Amino acid sequence: MVNEKYYGYGTAPSIIRELFAYGLQKAKEVGKDKVFDYSLGNPSIPAPPEVNETIKKLVDEESSILLHGYSMAPGFESSREAIAKNLRDRFDTNAKASELYLTCGCAPALISVAKALTVKPEDNFICIAPYFPEYNVFFTAGGGQVKVVAPDIPDFQINLDALEEAIDENTVAVVINSPNNPSGVVYTEETLVKIGDLLKKKAAEYGHPIYIIADEPYRELVYGGVKVKFIPEVYDNTIVCYSWSKSLSLPGERIGYVYIPEKCENGKEIYAAMAGASRELGAVCPPTLIQRVVEECVVCDPDLEAYDQNRNDLYNGLIDIGYECAKPDGAFYLFIKAPNGDDMAFSEAAKLEENILIVPGTGFGCPGYLRLAYCVSNEMIKNSLPGFKRLFEKYGK
Amino acid sequence: MVNEKYYGYGTAPSIIRELFAYGLQKAKEVGKDKVFDYSLGNPSIPAPPEVNETIKKLVDEESSILLHGYSMAPGFESSREAIAKNLRDRFDTNAKASELYLTCGCAPALISVAKALTVKPEDNFICIAPYFPEYNVFFTAGGGQVKVVAPDIPDFQINLDALEEAIDENTVAVVINSPNNPSGVVYTEETLVKIGDLLKKKAAEYGHPIYIIADEPYRELVYGGVKVKFIPEVYDNTIVCYSWSKSLSLPGERIGYVYIPEKCENGKEIYAAMAGASRELGAVCPPTLIQRVVEECVVCDPDLEAYDQNRNDLYNGLIDIGYECAKPDGAFYLFIKAPNGDDMAFSEAAKLEENILIVPGTGFGCPGYLRLAYCVSNEMIKNSLPGFKRLFEKYGK
Repeated sequence: MVNEKYYGYGTAPSIIRELFAYGLQKAKEVGKDKVFDYSLGNPSIPAPPEVNETIKKLVDEESSILLHGYSMAPGFESSREAIAKNLRDRFDTNAKASELYLTCGCAPALISVAKALTVKPEDNFICIAPYFPEYNVFFTAGGGQVKVVAPDIPDFQINLDALEEAIDENTVAVVINSPNNPSGVVYTEETLVKIGDLLKKKAAEYGHPIYIIADEPYRELVYGGVKVKFIPEVYDNTIVCYSWSKSLSLPGERIGYVYIPEKCENGKEIYAAMAGASRELGAVCPPTLIQRVVEECVVCDPDLEAYDQNRNDLYNGLIDIGYECAKPDGAFYLFIKAPNGDDMAFSEAAKLEENILIVPGTGFGCPGYLRLAYCVSNEMIKNSLPGFKRLFEKYGK
Repeated sequence: MVNEKYYGYGTAPSIIRELFAYGLQKAKEVGKDKVFDYSLGNPSIPAPPEVNETIKKLVDEESSILLHGYSMAPGFESSREAIAKNLRDRFDTNAKASELYLTCGCAPALISVAKALTVKPEDNFICIAPYFPEYNVFFTAGGGQVKVVAPDIPDFQINLDALEEAIDENTVAVVINSPNNPSGVVYTEETLVKIGDLLKKKAAEYGHPIYIIADEPYRELVYGGVKVKFIPEVYDNTIVCYSWSKSLSLPGERIGYVYIPEKCENGKEIYAAMAGASRELGAVCPPTLIQRVVEECVVCDPDLEAYDQNRNDLYNGLIDIGYECAKPDGAFYLFIKAPNGDDMAFSEAAKLEENILIVPGTGFGCPGYLRLAYCVSNEMIKNSLPGFKRLFEKYGK
């Protein structure tokens, strides 16, 4: 008597949620400092101080009716213009407010784009493993399919031959998530240029554009001077989906955007269809107070020092023990190889033997690896290393 | 190359938006005080002062990471418990936090419920005219259909014979919106009890429950001591969708809920399916700061004096002129009969001849009537009455 698909979505077990819940329970038994929870990608640095200052200023100075009233569905013109200007200032783009559509975070951005681009049931969106498991929900939301390209082990760049093989006449778009969740890897400009060339070739072959959907919530989270190429600079048919969840540490406030550059083929039609699909998501407008906050704070840089310190301490600590791990240039994830080759078993062992909570790569389309979210306290990292060492000694070859 | 349905949704003309845009443009030409815009249902009273006070308190006192971080998908436990308690205090219900699912306003609440309940393409949701036009998007979002019951003219209660005739073996739910947009009418307890009896009879006949989906954003907006019956008190199989957009004047902040009472048949399954459907809407969690605000402010009553004054002045003014109008006990709408019988033509005439912007009832499934949103300044109402008089004299019979 209820929809089976959605009942399935609503009752599907989530290893991440289960690990997190286990950690909370265990912390009650053995103490919080004895549980090492690397399961959740919840920012551990506070929002820049400008965020709360702006909230208070707006609440004090702006009329309640304007501040808390409806905006246009794509968001306030002034907010979109500030964001467009910031893109123009930082990248080689002539971004305009009218090319931006603000959303309640990245999830509805990706879904509305998927729905706009899906025309028939055979249409497919290519996701490159390892990838965010929720893509399976997002990119099938319009009735199309997800096609997975196997991971490029051990560097977790993109295997171009495998990608070429995956693209077919029904391929609508390739989803690029860099810095990557779960690997922390940043795709090189060289990789992106090659993908662009490949998509142009395939588009000519099949007679329709193949888009890149750039899922970029981690764009600002990079370390050691690494640059994240702004994909529209190397490939015209790019649709950018962004959120401030990580860069401003505002994941709960639900604010992001879709950016469809003018030069993107059928861009205006896609924008209209995406706006239309948003009606079916119930997206009346993104939260207005937070739109105004972003308008002011889009220029703020996150203070990445704590993440960088964590990254170095965890990466070096694990490598010293003997773990293998791709070079983590961005986001706040490490993706390590399971010493025993079995990510599910290793996650379970780490949990039961050491209260270390790490997420198996299987759910990310990459068995044999595990994700560690290092948006945690530095102390927790240091205290967890002896446990990692014992696990490696027991399960490593 | 883009999805046709969503392109249609994204490019469909909206009379309300067009009237509103016309008003903005006209105001530049003739002055704001010469334009009488009754087109939009945007609250005109500020949020209760507790709202902004709570925002500032939270920002000052709560950790940024907790305040702006993710909540669980259904919302903070503490917020849901405060809302459940408020329901228990006010109504004959044992509402629990676990029966509430917080949403980004009423729109995704209604859509996720529609998707949860739609099992096959023949499934239908019955909407009673006049009704909010966006229901056509919301209740077909799961692939089912909208079936419309003709309006009960001139009182705009519900024609039970017509409703009975509309219900068939594929009827999943009847949507009840009281106080009603666009009529401002509050359905009587007697009407609701009779509907409940009818649905029980039909459920027995067809062998499956027929739900009431109670769309209640205007529940608190009633005047003259009129009571809005809490529908779960008279019919067990009721699913409540609520938002604080109107009651706390927070439409831009996107906060509402689905409440599925324990006694509702298959309630737990519906809740799970609705949660699952929410994933496909990209509803990661409702805005967290605003969740916490509602947690504190759910006990606040809106200051309805201004709306009530507007209601009386506009209603009495129009009746004195000779207009016909159902008794407007709630929301902030009047629904008047077009003096010439043609709502489209009358709206156009009012716009062009008097700069009076009123929305034809045709879009609400009720031709021959027009909606006036009186969430405006009282001065505007007074200044608009001479124009209404001239229109009536010219077009009235």
